[in-house]
Amino acid sequence: MSLLVVGSVGIDTVETPAERREELLGGSAVYFACAAAYFTRVTIVGVIGEDFPSEHRKLLERRNIDLSGLETAPGKTFRWSGKYHANMNDRDTLDVQLNVFGAFTPKVPLAARTADFLFLANIVPAQQHGVLTQMARRPRFVAADTMNLWIQNARADLDALVSDVDALVLNDSEARLYTGEHELLTAGRAVLAKGPKTVIIKKGEHGALVVTRDGKFVVPAYPLEHVVDPTGAGDSFAGATMGYLAACGAVSPDNLRRAVAYGSVVASFTCQDFSLDALLRASRAEIDARFQELVEMTRIPD
Amino acid sequence: MSLLVVGSVGIDTVETPAERREELLGGSAVYFACAAAYFTRVTIVGVIGEDFPSEHRKLLERRNIDLSGLETAPGKTFRWSGKYHANMNDRDTLDVQLNVFGAFTPKVPLAARTADFLFLANIVPAQQHGVLTQMARRPRFVAADTMNLWIQNARADLDALVSDVDALVLNDSEARLYTGEHELLTAGRAVLAKGPKTVIIKKGEHGALVVTRDGKFVVPAYPLEHVVDPTGAGDSFAGATMGYLAACGAVSPDNLRRAVAYGSVVASFTCQDFSLDALLRASRAEIDARFQELVEMTRIPD
Repeated sequence: MSLLVVGSVGIDTVETPAERREELLGGSAVYFACAAAYFTRVTIVGVIGEDFPSEHRKLLERRNIDLSGLETAPGKTFRWSGKYHANMNDRDTLDVQLNVFGAFTPKVPLAARTADFLFLANIVPAQQHGVLTQMARRPRFVAADTMNLWIQNARADLDALVSDVDALVLNDSEARLYTGEHELLTAGRAVLAKGPKTVIIKKGEHGALVVTRDGKFVVPAYPLEHVVDPTGAGDSFAGATMGYLAACGAVSPDNLRRAVAYGSVVASFTCQDFSLDALLRASRAEIDARFQELVEMTRIPD
Repeated sequence: MSLLVVGSVGIDTVETPAERREELLGGSAVYFACAAAYFTRVTIVGVIGEDFPSEHRKLLERRNIDLSGLETAPGKTFRWSGKYHANMNDRDTLDVQLNVFGAFTPKVPLAARTADFLFLANIVPAQQHGVLTQMARRPRFVAADTMNLWIQNARADLDALVSDVDALVLNDSEARLYTGEHELLTAGRAVLAKGPKTVIIKKGEHGALVVTRDGKFVVPAYPLEHVVDPTGAGDSFAGATMGYLAACGAVSPDNLRRAVAYGSVVASFTCQDFSLDALLRASRAEIDARFQELVEMTRIPD
């Protein structure tokens, strides 16, 4: 089924303890779409500046990603620069230049307004909510991401959005900040009380915890021998999760578990090189092989 | 089969963000034994001072724990005092009084020298190794714990011990310190290269990673809504793991997985109250119920 993502398209500069790389293709919608594209066709709604390299656009088009909702605005593309700590899990944002992304109001192309699956990547909550109102009909499944900035500065808008989505995806520190609860299970249940049926708490190198009204599911990160650059891991996790669900067409509890496990696997590829390099090198067969490994390495014989 | 643990028996003072408690029964051998006792009879080799309350001794005896190797030395019992950070995962050691534990040389009682399963809890590596040489025959399975102090100050002795055990149990920061590898899978494999067939890396609230020559196994911590005091969680994890294995009699890959899952479950009870209070309140049926929950919450339908 059709999948739509709204989020950032950007140019990143990433510094790890080992290396510094500039002019990297990035942005939440890009990582999401490249991950989702392993499972289904995905439409990006976003904005780029006049400086956006044409090879990046071509790369996305070659992955069967629909760019009809990617508008070009006068000015420069969104730029983000970050530096990872030695643990490769924590990072400092060194610089953010919103550029054309600062004045962006998402406009969903007519053909995408009937999308069955919708992911609202991390932008201003009111803008996320605005996308939902543009849809011709309620999608089968709507998930949203958020960040500490909106939790602290736009809580009412965020609460309104959260009450209107099927799933909230956020990381562990955001879940704690949003709910005031330290234990993630309790934080997850506090999010459910705000409306969604599902909350997916991303724990970085420790995987993810899914809390639903019926139960909980814990999936580890696929363990790697070496992490090069975790930028985009969370967005590709979400992309593979949503892409798998859209390919299934229905969000059953078992499909959700498989989807999140695929999210974990695809995110692991993202971490193995800068930008989208390792993610895009992975074949579907390699992804499926890691999925089977994850099934095996988590199996508790009862 | 018979299980022997060598480690500390102590009196703790624990401060959490919510509460401060004094004169608590603690020590690695005590947490280990109380956890293991759900599965098998366990013998403690350790030392207490003349001030050790008789009710603590009675409590352990009532749990079917053999105290024939618990010697009483002139002086005071080992004392530890710690304070937990708001995240309940990090803690500062406020005070350590070794007392009789400082001059302790473990002496394994004659009847325990044929123990089939041996756990060398965290003491000086040379002392751990000395216990192994006291055994009348090589136990079927020997596991050891360690800590940053010995990794930094007694590395040669630790390496010698590690090359002589079947399994090393240590936490994530210790695994990184010991091997110089940040990624835990790589750290685990670096430990395997030192000799053991199995390494169990404890990740606190994130569970544990088991690395063997044949593969890997990831088990989450059993998620709790509220953590009161995580002191002893690692030792009760090890106790339940070894207790389950001793009850099985053989360390097959599937038994090891079940054992570590029981370790995770029993450690979760430990975290729900101060000292051994919640651990000792748990019934075997409650432990088995959480084990089944853990099986279910980690299941990836393939």
